Amino acid sequence: MDCVTRVDAFAAKMGKYDLDLALLFDRDNIRYFTGFRLNRVVSSILAVSRNGNTTYIVAQLDLKRAKRDCWIEHVIPFPEDTPNYLASLAPLLRGSPRRIGVEKDTLTLAQMEYMMEIAGAGVEFVDVRGLTAQLRIIKSDEEIACIRRAADVASRVMDKVRQEIRPGVREAELASWTGYLMGKEGAEGPSFEPFMMSGENAWLPQRVASQKALKDGELVLLDMGAVCDGYCSDITRTFAVGEVSQEQKRVFQVAWKAQQAAIEAIRPGVHAFEVDAAAREIVEAEGLAAYFPHLTGHGVGVSVHEAPILDKGVDTVLQPGMVVTVEPGVYLPRVGAARVEDMVLVTTSGCELLTSAARDLV
Amino acid sequence: MDCVTRVDAFAAKMGKYDLDLALLFDRDNIRYFTGFRLNRVVSSILAVSRNGNTTYIVAQLDLKRAKRDCWIEHVIPFPEDTPNYLASLAPLLRGSPRRIGVEKDTLTLAQMEYMMEIAGAGVEFVDVRGLTAQLRIIKSDEEIACIRRAADVASRVMDKVRQEIRPGVREAELASWTGYLMGKEGAEGPSFEPFMMSGENAWLPQRVASQKALKDGELVLLDMGAVCDGYCSDITRTFAVGEVSQEQKRVFQVAWKAQQAAIEAIRPGVHAFEVDAAAREIVEAEGLAAYFPHLTGHGVGVSVHEAPILDKGVDTVLQPGMVVTVEPGVYLPRVGAARVEDMVLVTTSGCELLTSAARDLV
Repeated sequence: MDCVTRVDAFAAKMGKYDLDLALLFDRDNIRYFTGFRLNRVVSSILAVSRNGNTTYIVAQLDLKRAKRDCWIEHVIPFPEDTPNYLASLAPLLRGSPRRIGVEKDTLTLAQMEYMMEIAGAGVEFVDVRGLTAQLRIIKSDEEIACIRRAADVASRVMDKVRQEIRPGVREAELASWTGYLMGKEGAEGPSFEPFMMSGENAWLPQRVASQKALKDGELVLLDMGAVCDGYCSDITRTFAVGEVSQEQKRVFQVAWKAQQAAIEAIRPGVHAFEVDAAAREIVEAEGLAAYFPHLTGHGVGVSVHEAPILDKGVDTVLQPGMVVTVEPGVYLPRVGAARVEDMVLVTTSGCELLTSAARDLV
Repeated sequence: MDCVTRVDAFAAKMGKYDLDLALLFDRDNIRYFTGFRLNRVVSSILAVSRNGNTTYIVAQLDLKRAKRDCWIEHVIPFPEDTPNYLASLAPLLRGSPRRIGVEKDTLTLAQMEYMMEIAGAGVEFVDVRGLTAQLRIIKSDEEIACIRRAADVASRVMDKVRQEIRPGVREAELASWTGYLMGKEGAEGPSFEPFMMSGENAWLPQRVASQKALKDGELVLLDMGAVCDGYCSDITRTFAVGEVSQEQKRVFQVAWKAQQAAIEAIRPGVHAFEVDAAAREIVEAEGLAAYFPHLTGHGVGVSVHEAPILDKGVDTVLQPGMVVTVEPGVYLPRVGAARVEDMVLVTTSGCELLTSAARDLV
């Protein structure tokens, strides 16, 4: 089973960093290693010891299902709805680990203080985010198959939502319609709160769907994605409501052209900053550099936003098996905003588009 | 404006606890104090000084909108997509605060270490979660009006989804349909990933909607809620698919009767554990105590799950203006599961049901 290989690879890295134990709290890391799906508001903890032994600690309510469905043999419960749920960690912490791997961007101060109290002084908390990111950045064939499914669902849904773009319909209604269509197409759910933003909301940008109705002459962005078998997709399209101006069309063309240039730059051996630069050059040549205020892309996998980041100053070298979004955007005040976002797989010879929804404005 | 009063009340509490500065990272606390909506994957930080001065730190992309829409005058940006986004805190941290209030269940180890580096040694991080919970536990009339809207949306949607319960339809499809209907009814979005669980999935319980289709003779639970103007609702109903057995009907009747008993127990001055006990007594009298493995209820507000908790051992005294769910459940292996969950407002004389969707099995 693929998850076993992942844990073994992680345990091998733990040895190199002289870690006795790793306690993982991040739900995406946990899903990556366990393959087990939990409701997103529910917590669990994965303990990995240096020899690769694993203990999975789940809420009492999830125990039966985890024992039935998860490959990990040692599953223990923590009590529901108590601040002392970490007490289940005591036997592991009293095993006198000296260096404990944790995700420092996930572990909270409360969790750390509680663990220090149980483990006693002298325990060192070491960040393992780099180690898990290293593992997750290259996708296996099995993972790529899941990502393809998630990308296909998002592409099909995007093409359907395009049909619903018309004056009078509200951003929030279309955003929630997007969510429904993904469920209907077999997704576990959306990979993030889908958002549609139109007119001024788009160039601000707003980044949430509001109760505003679409109006004739506006550019509209829909950014959304699905989760299939634990893997995410992420796609954005820009639509015109009725007739739009030449200047709005230009904003769209620049954003799309920048995206195409970035995609053309993607192949193994290229640095992340070079892909970003390919997009930025196009926008700059049009005198719009100031209106492209974000990154060009990011990795996608179990998390909708993970390594590698495609941005200025990022020197990650692209390798086959990486999956990234490419999504330069132009947000021109009082005119409109445009962004075309696709998912791209880095292959041995170049790259392959994973998302396929129509890209034109109308 | 209500948010100003909230910040002033918080700053007064800070004085009592000798805090120089509070740095809030929890999105629900931030929404409570700012009234400002952000996409849920986007971070922001609210700094409150002891004299009530506030600085709101948002991502560069959200700056224009925050300046336009948020009541806080001092809004500053942090750069997007950089691990150094906390650098924006430097001027505040160098103001030599000695005691900084933080949410210890939200602040991560990475954030704390970064702040300690800027602030230097000798800074004490003090948990303010108790202070914000104290403020948020009693809802103002304005807040209750928002919660009523969220409860109304959830009730209307629940009654509509009830019509769709039939053999062959998949859990995930109905869960996503629920999300769509909430958007159509004017919600910002769901208050949590709605889940439907049927048959064995329900009594395990599964707590996520799967690709399983509903089957004749099953009990089905739908747990969902909406967000309106930043406030959450939370409601569960149990449905029968076609004909169900006497034993399944009994499971449902026990769960519903337990819920009614708990609701009848709610009035000002009663302890949380007494409400819980009222529900548990009913389930116990039926010999089903072992199959009611969770709390009886929880507070609802800006967070879908907040204080007060209605459970064994919780001695919070109920007061007018508290809003809680009441949701005892019975999960009987190989038979079925049932839970009826409503939202209740504690009033000066007793309580008032906020959710109204039909409660019967068919």
